Amino acid sequence: MREKVDLAAKLAGFEEAFRPRIVGYYNDDKIQVAKVKGEFVWHSHPDTDDLFLVLSGSLTIELRAENVQLGPGDLYVVPRGVEHRPRSDDGAEILLIEPAGTPNTGDSGAEPTPEVEI
Amino acid sequence: MREKVDLAAKLAGFEEAFRPRIVGYYNDDKIQVAKVKGEFVWHSHPDTDDLFLVLSGSLTIELRAENVQLGPGDLYVVPRGVEHRPRSDDGAEILLIEPAGTPNTGDSGAEPTPEVEI
Repeated sequence: MREKVDLAAKLAGFEEAFRPRIVGYYNDDKIQVAKVKGEFVWHSHPDTDDLFLVLSGSLTIELRAENVQLGPGDLYVVPRGVEHRPRSDDGAEILLIEPAGTPNTGDSGAEPTPEVEI
Repeated sequence: MREKVDLAAKLAGFEEAFRPRIVGYYNDDKIQVAKVKGEFVWHSHPDTDDLFLVLSGSLTIELRAENVQLGPGDLYVVPRGVEHRPRSDDGAEILLIEPAGTPNTGDSGAEPTPEVEI
């Protein structure tokens, strides 16, 4: 049987920002937790939406047209192909769902974080 | 631009248990919130996994072999084809992700809840 996933316990196991960890799978998607602190690179995912759910802290998703401000319990789906840059000045913990194999740096040209299961 | 989704605010808008509301979409999936109180019908989804995240309260996912006990911040993916019955004696609020069009009653023969967006 699959195990339940305690998201807070998984997040307590690492510190690095912008290094998502895979905590499970849903169909062809990877379910990840991540910490955000500072700002990531501008990128988009040409082939998939990107699901963000804030678990703690405060997250800004910068879009080219405007910023989306998210707190705990706020969910946002970045549509496929839309450039975005996650940022948090004070830190945030998030749940992130994307298809397995999706590079976290999208089409930016930056080196993606290897996919790591915890 | 898509709007952010405040899950607690969406859940405050209705009372009925086992009547999921669609709050957004991620690729071909519907993102839903639902209230659980009492027990649902035994069912499975032959073609898809079923993602549960508990937002508040206490949720039991009964499986034929054992029960999975979930509290706030616990996530569980019921594998495709696995019979399950969600239950909560004291009530729970959950996030639920399944492909759009998936009947919430699965293969049970029970009438599914119509898909409603809020």
